[in-house]
Amino acid sequence: MTTRPGLAQLGLSAGKKARLHRILYQYGQRNGTALFLPYDQGLEHGPRDFFENPAASDPAYIIRLAIEGGFNGIAIQIGLAEKFYWNYAGEIPLVLKLNGKTDIPSADAPLSPVNATVADAVRLGADAVGYTLYVGTELQDRDFEQYRQVRAEARRLGMPLIVWSYPRGSAIDAKGGKDSFYAVDYAARTASELGADVVKVNFPHPAKQDRVPGPYQGSFSSQEAIDAVVRSANRTLLLVSGGERAGDDAMLDKARESMAAGAAGLIFGRNVWQRDHDQSLRFAAALQEILAKYPSADMPAEP
Amino acid sequence: MTTRPGLAQLGLSAGKKARLHRILYQYGQRNGTALFLPYDQGLEHGPRDFFENPAASDPAYIIRLAIEGGFNGIAIQIGLAEKFYWNYAGEIPLVLKLNGKTDIPSADAPLSPVNATVADAVRLGADAVGYTLYVGTELQDRDFEQYRQVRAEARRLGMPLIVWSYPRGSAIDAKGGKDSFYAVDYAARTASELGADVVKVNFPHPAKQDRVPGPYQGSFSSQEAIDAVVRSANRTLLLVSGGERAGDDAMLDKARESMAAGAAGLIFGRNVWQRDHDQSLRFAAALQEILAKYPSADMPAEP
Amino acid sequence: MTTRPGLAQLGLSAGKKARLHRILYQYGQRNGTALFLPYDQGLEHGPRDFFENPAASDPAYIIRLAIEGGFNGIAIQIGLAEKFYWNYAGEIPLVLKLNGKTDIPSADAPLSPVNATVADAVRLGADAVGYTLYVGTELQDRDFEQYRQVRAEARRLGMPLIVWSYPRGSAIDAKGGKDSFYAVDYAARTASELGADVVKVNFPHPAKQDRVPGPYQGSFSSQEAIDAVVRSANRTLLLVSGGERAGDDAMLDKARESMAAGAAGLIFGRNVWQRDHDQSLRFAAALQEILAKYPSADMPAEP
Amino acid sequence: MTTRPGLAQLGLSAGKKARLHRILYQYGQRNGTALFLPYDQGLEHGPRDFFENPAASDPAYIIRLAIEGGFNGIAIQIGLAEKFYWNYAGEIPLVLKLNGKTDIPSADAPLSPVNATVADAVRLGADAVGYTLYVGTELQDRDFEQYRQVRAEARRLGMPLIVWSYPRGSAIDAKGGKDSFYAVDYAARTASELGADVVKVNFPHPAKQDRVPGPYQGSFSSQEAIDAVVRSANRTLLLVSGGERAGDDAMLDKARESMAAGAAGLIFGRNVWQRDHDQSLRFAAALQEILAKYPSADMPAEP
Amino acid sequence: MTTRPGLAQLGLSAGKKARLHRILYQYGQRNGTALFLPYDQGLEHGPRDFFENPAASDPAYIIRLAIEGGFNGIAIQIGLAEKFYWNYAGEIPLVLKLNGKTDIPSADAPLSPVNATVADAVRLGADAVGYTLYVGTELQDRDFEQYRQVRAEARRLGMPLIVWSYPRGSAIDAKGGKDSFYAVDYAARTASELGADVVKVNFPHPAKQDRVPGPYQGSFSSQEAIDAVVRSANRTLLLVSGGERAGDDAMLDKARESMAAGAAGLIFGRNVWQRDHDQSLRFAAALQEILAKYPSADMPAEP
Repeated sequence: MTTRPGLAQLGLSAGKKARLHRILYQYGQRNGTALFLPYDQGLEHGPRDFFENPAASDPAYIIRLAIEGGFNGIAIQIGLAEKFYWNYAGEIPLVLKLNGKTDIPSADAPLSPVNATVADAVRLGADAVGYTLYVGTELQDRDFEQYRQVRAEARRLGMPLIVWSYPRGSAIDAKGGKDSFYAVDYAARTASELGADVVKVNFPHPAKQDRVPGPYQGSFSSQEAIDAVVRSANRTLLLVSGGERAGDDAMLDKARESMAAGAAGLIFGRNVWQRDHDQSLRFAAALQEILAKYPSADMPAEP
Repeated sequence: MTTRPGLAQLGLSAGKKARLHRILYQYGQRNGTALFLPYDQGLEHGPRDFFENPAASDPAYIIRLAIEGGFNGIAIQIGLAEKFYWNYAGEIPLVLKLNGKTDIPSADAPLSPVNATVADAVRLGADAVGYTLYVGTELQDRDFEQYRQVRAEARRLGMPLIVWSYPRGSAIDAKGGKDSFYAVDYAARTASELGADVVKVNFPHPAKQDRVPGPYQGSFSSQEAIDAVVRSANRTLLLVSGGERAGDDAMLDKARESMAAGAAGLIFGRNVWQRDHDQSLRFAAALQEILAKYPSADMPAEP
Repeated sequence: MTTRPGLAQLGLSAGKKARLHRILYQYGQRNGTALFLPYDQGLEHGPRDFFENPAASDPAYIIRLAIEGGFNGIAIQIGLAEKFYWNYAGEIPLVLKLNGKTDIPSADAPLSPVNATVADAVRLGADAVGYTLYVGTELQDRDFEQYRQVRAEARRLGMPLIVWSYPRGSAIDAKGGKDSFYAVDYAARTASELGADVVKVNFPHPAKQDRVPGPYQGSFSSQEAIDAVVRSANRTLLLVSGGERAGDDAMLDKARESMAAGAAGLIFGRNVWQRDHDQSLRFAAALQEILAKYPSADMPAEP
Repeated sequence: MTTRPGLAQLGLSAGKKARLHRILYQYGQRNGTALFLPYDQGLEHGPRDFFENPAASDPAYIIRLAIEGGFNGIAIQIGLAEKFYWNYAGEIPLVLKLNGKTDIPSADAPLSPVNATVADAVRLGADAVGYTLYVGTELQDRDFEQYRQVRAEARRLGMPLIVWSYPRGSAIDAKGGKDSFYAVDYAARTASELGADVVKVNFPHPAKQDRVPGPYQGSFSSQEAIDAVVRSANRTLLLVSGGERAGDDAMLDKARESMAAGAAGLIFGRNVWQRDHDQSLRFAAALQEILAKYPSADMPAEP
Repeated sequence: MTTRPGLAQLGLSAGKKARLHRILYQYGQRNGTALFLPYDQGLEHGPRDFFENPAASDPAYIIRLAIEGGFNGIAIQIGLAEKFYWNYAGEIPLVLKLNGKTDIPSADAPLSPVNATVADAVRLGADAVGYTLYVGTELQDRDFEQYRQVRAEARRLGMPLIVWSYPRGSAIDAKGGKDSFYAVDYAARTASELGADVVKVNFPHPAKQDRVPGPYQGSFSSQEAIDAVVRSANRTLLLVSGGERAGDDAMLDKARESMAAGAAGLIFGRNVWQRDHDQSLRFAAALQEILAKYPSADMPAEP
């Protein structure tokens, strides 16, 4: 059982509710939780992310992996969606990632340009769209502006909006970095204030306290931190991101703490596919096992 | 009794007059004054503002507090409005804050991006919209430009426009700071010149005279300063903001001087909700007591 | 008698001609000259301009003063026009000033953002619109661009366009300053080349020759300078601005020289209202006396 | 006889061909050549250009001069066109110069803002429009962008587009300057690649070889250079500009070499009108004499 | 035989498939491969590229050369297309290059402005459009933004989109340069992620390892590198570019390795036309010989 809000409490339109319901109750654990496979690293980092497991360079391989692993959705850019999703349409929900960039130039003031529209997502049969918001950069005015247009279009078309809410830029670097409790907490709240339906955050590190604001300079356990982050997201469903590949045990601990805090699910990419096929599925199964323990309080009636 | 202008003298359209009438005469003291609860700090400062009173992190708690405290409206961002206002719609007027930003990057030349539209406000049943104008920054051309579009849309839809008129940026910092009598007086006049219906300012500090223009380098009492600021706003209703939490007595003094000067009301957030529930209500009651002493000269006839 | 061009020679559309005719022949001297009262200093400089004569802080006072003084129009921003002009509509022509800014940030590369539209002016019953063009700044491309849109809209709606043609910015500061004969002459020509109907310039100072281009480094009387400036404006009616308050005799000399040169009129603000009411009217009367001596050559027939 | 392409070979639409035909065969030599009088210096340089011959300050004087001198067109900005062209409409083709700027700020990265539209040109009865493209500046992306919109509108309305193709900016200054053979040759080609109908260039100076690319560091006569430039323009008619006033003999030599190379004509302003009326006409007559020797190979049949 | 994907596997709309089919099966080898002649160097580098073979300055010469050499298309800018393609329309497919710039200013953060639209391409009978994307620059947000609009318009009109995917800018210069395996591999993937139908890349240089990311700091043969690049492009057809003129044998080796890796073809300009006519055709024939060995696996049935 969980304390996270049910779909009925999120202020959703019918279209958004129908699509989120499909993701949360017709795939994966079908219990209101979600496990997403993000696959935009080819753009965000380049093919270097695929050297560990060259098969992962092939989008078709990844989509099949997501289906086999019982994922609730796969998040990809427009180019891959147009070239690869048709073959698997209906078998797994599509989250069309609407913006993205390379990591080649300086990250001092990043801005992720929009590469596709919500209407593209509708046309492709997607069940949600994703937008990366870089919280706290010098360019936040341009970022908020383009985000607002995406949000408005998502509203008009009844498409759930998942915000990758990422603290970034030189000011964040100077105040504890992008993974501090302060930064992640602020990012979760920002997404909620700006009308995200779902927010994706990194797991907070309360020990990163170098020059963070006073209230965050205390002694917090990681459970306390993720609890607070989930509260800051309030009626915005929260997904915790895996980030760079790390030890499996640490990852599963993070996942457990996140779900205990009231997160709606997990979004793990490199930790899943930067290993061979069977290992990927085994790790996904371990994540599924965790999600199974957190069914929604408002499960819809069995048909 | 008060010298402030009545609704009939403000050059309002029917739609704006109807909505302002609702705020000023159907909630709170119902005497033409207003007490607003601003709640955009989660975006403007991040969740750190809620550590003192963790309950305040929950928008539902805050809206209920505003209702219990007899406030005339609550000012929130689009995300919270869409997720939380429905439950309380009609019980308290909604002021949809249309722009906002984080305080993470440098404040040398701030610009508050637009996160929602006046049409969003209409759709949500709001009775006013709010816009933060940073007076005196290097980016004033972009700020005025986006403000103008908001103003035009507010006019088209008959929606009252409350301008958070905030002196900011490096030039202001170099001329006495954002709270000087000079800065606040200029900010009040700017809002009036640019067509605000209501302007929110900080209480002026006439002692801050470091490098302010000559005319402001005199000896002014705080009452004289706030009197002048209200005059500069002329037919724009003026709200005095509480700002950071400070001593209650000082706050109540400010409130009294503001109302005596002809302000239309107060907009107090952190001073209200950065304490426990009962203390919050007691402080709100003290503010209400002041407002009760300043009924409009043009009170509409009893029905 | 005067050498200035008549309304019939200016290439005006019917709408522009009708409105300029109203200003020039139905108010003030009714002889083709004009005396305007500009009142945008509350925005351009802030309330400090009103400390000398606090009554001048009140827009209603100023509009009444313009009516009593027989002015041909009052130039104000949208906010004041919407709140104050209704009471006096028809009694004095309105010149809606479409752009404006504060003087708080650096003036190295000023740009005056647009705060209202020509359509706003039509709606408010204005007889002309005003636009401040900062000639010679690093941002001239953006300034010309927004000016062009205003010009096009003014053409579409038959609304006369008065350009406040002001040399400004660091390059002008480095070449003799904003009041040199060079700068003012260039500004007058620029307005003419870009299609102003009326141009407002400062009185040229031919003695300011520091680093101005060669042709301007000669010995010119102030009459020769203003003669040349009027020629540079060719078929654009020219108004000479009073600028900062200065001695009355010097001001009246400027006014006489301007009218002798073929200017169409004067636009004096601070020199008028930065003194008490009766002194203001006396000074206005002295200006009117000068204008009376320069009737148009093409006075329309008596009805 | 000449090697330059005939109108039928330029890929022109009917509207563009009709208007160019009017310019080239119904005015001036009526032999497919053209002599244009540019008169945008009042904006580009200011009135200082008129001190040598004050009569030249008057646009009416200049237009009459163009008619008397048998010019094929006069190139002016929107303001002068609206105020002065009506009187002479039909007597001489109008080339509406669509963009322009002052020369006051730094020329490190110039951009010439658009002051009028192709639709304005149609309305005024113009037979061509002019656009200044600053080739090689840091702002080329913005310049090309606004140029593209002008080109598209010119195409839509069948209006010939003359590009003032001017190498400019700090990079050009560092590679041989704006008049080098390299720079002028590149400018001619750029206009051709980007779809100009006619291109105006300065006469190339092959001796300016300081840091120009290798192929241009050879020994070229001025005839060889202008021959190459005309080739680079291929099916874009090429006009050679007079530039600053210089010795008449040198000017006439340039003109002869240009026409021998296959240029379509000349565009001389200051060299014409920076002298008294009769001298102006005598110089124009000398230019006409040259053009008379280069009739088009594809002269249309006598009516 | 080849491993490259067939047209049926690329997620193409009917219009895109029809046009690509025309290019790949009705011109050149008619076997699913393509040899393109790019001719935008007159804009990108200026006429200096034509000094080696002056005939190449003439677009008509180049188009005829492409026809004689059995090329599958010629890529030119709008100006040349409008002036020269009509004469050869239908004889060789047109690839309208939509953006382009000069190489005069600094290349630290290049952006290639859009000079024509997809609708222009349709009007001119083009079978594809080309867009230069500078991967990894500081301006990637503006580049992606304008690319997105081109992609959307190409989709709407069923026009194949060829992306010139070029790593550029100071960050790339600092990480191994624009031709490293890392840079080219990332560029190929970026085009695929962003929805290119065809991507043009330079041949990768695996020995350029200075400060490239770890995975690229190994020992790779050039065949291994181009194999990986083709994999990164996945369902995006890949063209290998010739670049600057180099030795013929080295060029032909590159071509062979590219086709063996699964490239769809070659795009060679300067290596073709920077020599005399017969040599150009001989070199083109050598390239054709290579392409002939790589027919598509899914050749359509003979009619």
